[in-house]
Amino acid sequence: MEFTFLGTSGGMPTKSRNVTALALQHGAPRQWYLIDCGEGTQHRLLRTRLSVMQLQAIFITHVHGDHTFGLPGLLCSASMNGRTDPLFLIAPRPVWTFVETALGNTDSSLSYELKFIDSEAEDFYWEDDALQVTATELSHRVSCRAFTFTEKNLERQLLKEKLTADGIEAGPIWGKLQQGQDVIMDNGTLIRSHDYTEINRRPRKVIVGGDNDTPELLRDTSHGAQVLIHEATYTQEVADRVGSWPMHSAAAQVASFAQSASIPNLVLTHFSSRYQSHPDAYPNISEVESEARGIYQGNLIMARDFAQLRLSREGKLELME
Amino acid sequence: MEFTFLGTSGGMPTKSRNVTALALQHGAPRQWYLIDCGEGTQHRLLRTRLSVMQLQAIFITHVHGDHTFGLPGLLCSASMNGRTDPLFLIAPRPVWTFVETALGNTDSSLSYELKFIDSEAEDFYWEDDALQVTATELSHRVSCRAFTFTEKNLERQLLKEKLTADGIEAGPIWGKLQQGQDVIMDNGTLIRSHDYTEINRRPRKVIVGGDNDTPELLRDTSHGAQVLIHEATYTQEVADRVGSWPMHSAAAQVASFAQSASIPNLVLTHFSSRYQSHPDAYPNISEVESEARGIYQGNLIMARDFAQLRLSREGKLELME
Repeated sequence: MEFTFLGTSGGMPTKSRNVTALALQHGAPRQWYLIDCGEGTQHRLLRTRLSVMQLQAIFITHVHGDHTFGLPGLLCSASMNGRTDPLFLIAPRPVWTFVETALGNTDSSLSYELKFIDSEAEDFYWEDDALQVTATELSHRVSCRAFTFTEKNLERQLLKEKLTADGIEAGPIWGKLQQGQDVIMDNGTLIRSHDYTEINRRPRKVIVGGDNDTPELLRDTSHGAQVLIHEATYTQEVADRVGSWPMHSAAAQVASFAQSASIPNLVLTHFSSRYQSHPDAYPNISEVESEARGIYQGNLIMARDFAQLRLSREGKLELME
Repeated sequence: MEFTFLGTSGGMPTKSRNVTALALQHGAPRQWYLIDCGEGTQHRLLRTRLSVMQLQAIFITHVHGDHTFGLPGLLCSASMNGRTDPLFLIAPRPVWTFVETALGNTDSSLSYELKFIDSEAEDFYWEDDALQVTATELSHRVSCRAFTFTEKNLERQLLKEKLTADGIEAGPIWGKLQQGQDVIMDNGTLIRSHDYTEINRRPRKVIVGGDNDTPELLRDTSHGAQVLIHEATYTQEVADRVGSWPMHSAAAQVASFAQSASIPNLVLTHFSSRYQSHPDAYPNISEVESEARGIYQGNLIMARDFAQLRLSREGKLELME
């Protein structure tokens, strides 16, 4: 499971950081998912190995433009590239209106089906072969959701001693059982995969937050999660100066929550455009990092544009080179 | 008068070229105008000296997304930067619908007034202190306009011999007359600027085309124009292969028209995303250039992203370093 940060700036782009978008790769080769789609997301993709042709679904946390204005262009470019596979757009309803109006008023038609799913429906749940996804309501100036991604179809280990003891010899049957398929033997006996295989690890579980001033709202969904990716728009000092109206989190808030919830990996993103990335510039993004590091004892990673992270099956999160 | 190309790709962005947008600087210091606004235009601006705070008006040639999808983000960023001056959006009506729906469905409000003007109104004409602008209907898959920009308020030269002969001594009065102001003398005589100054050059006149398969439509407006900026999406060979449905121009068509209309400067842009900029790559943008150069004998410039051109008062167009 891999993550590629396509934008890590809140509100407005900067020279080095685009507005929010995150790619999650999982499942079949090159298959991926997009969480939020700020303006210029398709431009960022041109500098990665990700292709809109293998994109399975787009999840939008909330309606704000820095999370949505890249949708029309990305959808049209997928069409100009000849995409025919349906694409899911899992978003608040006003985002559908925005997208439909954008396409409808610019002579744009898509070569594939865009399947809208209401991310704010009370019983929201989505899954495909690779992932199951739930949504958690957050606290922001507009309705906003975090998405929790949990992997499905974990690899099975053969119970070889049991197979041998029961006289089932190594061969193609073992392969089918390992893939979760039941097998009917020549003598008519049904051999169930379930009885001769086991899954010996926990599924990977990752929370991707939207804009949110109350990380505590993620307490329930965080049980068993290995990774929390959350906004930390500024330091507590700046948050206090700005006041509460933007309804964003300071690094200290997110760090305190992740620490208390024992989440082993925390990735901070969506930094205010006031923060500079260059080490000599002020105010510097390192201030946000220092604040979080002073509180959170787990594996803290500060997202930057184009950073790729890999989450191993064992739940270890690492920056890829 | 200066031009900055913010995007020179047609349809889709490439790694080195963004979709269409062009900045025209003229008039008061740092005052500028934007023609078309593809996705990522605000990102391009971050790498220039142009600020959305000094933007006077946005002209949209037609509704297609590669000319419009950058509008919501640019408008919102101007607002986040605290703009209060009104901004003109001169565009086809469906673009207003797109922009209003984008803002209305993403919790976006602007800190300044956005003044819509219908670029397709039959009597379309717009001017401010620096420029007068007319529109010419083009031929494309959707309604499309070229905009012709003609400078206003040219600098006046004092008729010094006449002033001296009439006993009007050099002093602050001369300055006022040169600025076009009439002056009432102490003895009550009205001295008209018009009588004691002259304008001794032609106004600069520039045509910026939209997407168009019939350059000949620009014949009338091209009289006296020093510059034509026009799409040349591909070579004639590629155009023939693609067929007529996209309704774009090949380089040869534009070159032939500019040559026959005796336009002294021709700038080609909006190259198909198939064309590569790197000299070793194929198909190469140099093919488009060669085709035009074989026909057009004037000053030909191939636009590239971030290229800045200066049009002197004498009508000489040059690439700035």
